[in-house]
Amino acid sequence: MDVSAVNALPYEDFVIFFGNVVEKCPLITAAVWAKRPFVSLAALETAISEFIDALPESGKEGILRCHPDLAGRDLQSGTLTRESREEQAGAGMDALNSAEASRMAQLNEEYKQRFGFPFVICARMNDKANILRQLSERCQNERATERARGIAEVKKICRLRLQALVLSDAPNKL
Amino acid sequence: MDVSAVNALPYEDFVIFFGNVVEKCPLITAAVWAKRPFVSLAALETAISEFIDALPESGKEGILRCHPDLAGRDLQSGTLTRESREEQAGAGMDALNSAEASRMAQLNEEYKQRFGFPFVICARMNDKANILRQLSERCQNERATERARGIAEVKKICRLRLQALVLSDAPNKL
Repeated sequence: MDVSAVNALPYEDFVIFFGNVVEKCPLITAAVWAKRPFVSLAALETAISEFIDALPESGKEGILRCHPDLAGRDLQSGTLTRESREEQAGAGMDALNSAEASRMAQLNEEYKQRFGFPFVICARMNDKANILRQLSERCQNERATERARGIAEVKKICRLRLQALVLSDAPNKL
Repeated sequence: MDVSAVNALPYEDFVIFFGNVVEKCPLITAAVWAKRPFVSLAALETAISEFIDALPESGKEGILRCHPDLAGRDLQSGTLTRESREEQAGAGMDALNSAEASRMAQLNEEYKQRFGFPFVICARMNDKANILRQLSERCQNERATERARGIAEVKKICRLRLQALVLSDAPNKL
């Protein structure tokens, strides 16, 4: 990757390109654009992470609420973002059997009822069985624990999305 | 409007419904959901305004950078959000003559070069001549002044979008 190409992007192209590294939160990408030049992709990732950390707790919950359920209605209706669709498919969320689908729906609902935000996990780093197990376990946590855990997962997703974009080499084509 | 219907919305429907009252910033809507029940629409508006005010300056600039140019490339390419398209059309931004279009493009570019974020104005409260005049004048301001002014305009846009949604009575139909 040519980080200088990224640093040369006007904010509009930067936001088009990196706007969904945090799901449906282009505000974050747009905010950190002002921190360029980035010495590396890691520096951009750090800027995003620091921006998230500086948000009030309500803002962190807001980020979580911008995430779709795993194997939820956005997947069913085809309204997932491209990134989410690929991630969920990679973890087999689009190919659950009916028992798994029913269990996932029940646990997602239980989680949301308990915390007021969705279960967020980096699907690319987990398989179906692992996701179901963690969803079940994490339902038992405290709200503050889950808010922090969800945000940690958001950052893992962000890192992988950034890496995928860089490998795509598209900044040079903008 | 039945504010109790709004207060009863799960966060997913709340974000679908109110997610674009601040342009492309569903994070904000998703964050303030936790402040319900709202005693009125004004209380929801206040919660949004307070959330914005609590953001770091970089976050406020991030909000501005999520806004399209007036009569800019998103209007040309048909990629404006529905709300922006209606607002820009209402102010005649889709019917500029070539001299006006050229002047608008030049001033938008000058503004963005100077400030690193786009010129934001509540199009519903201004006509074409007024917008061009203010764009020209505001290019002369300091960055901090324009950041604050842009955010004040974001709040006006938000208020009108909220009112339009309430009049549409759609919460009762979700």
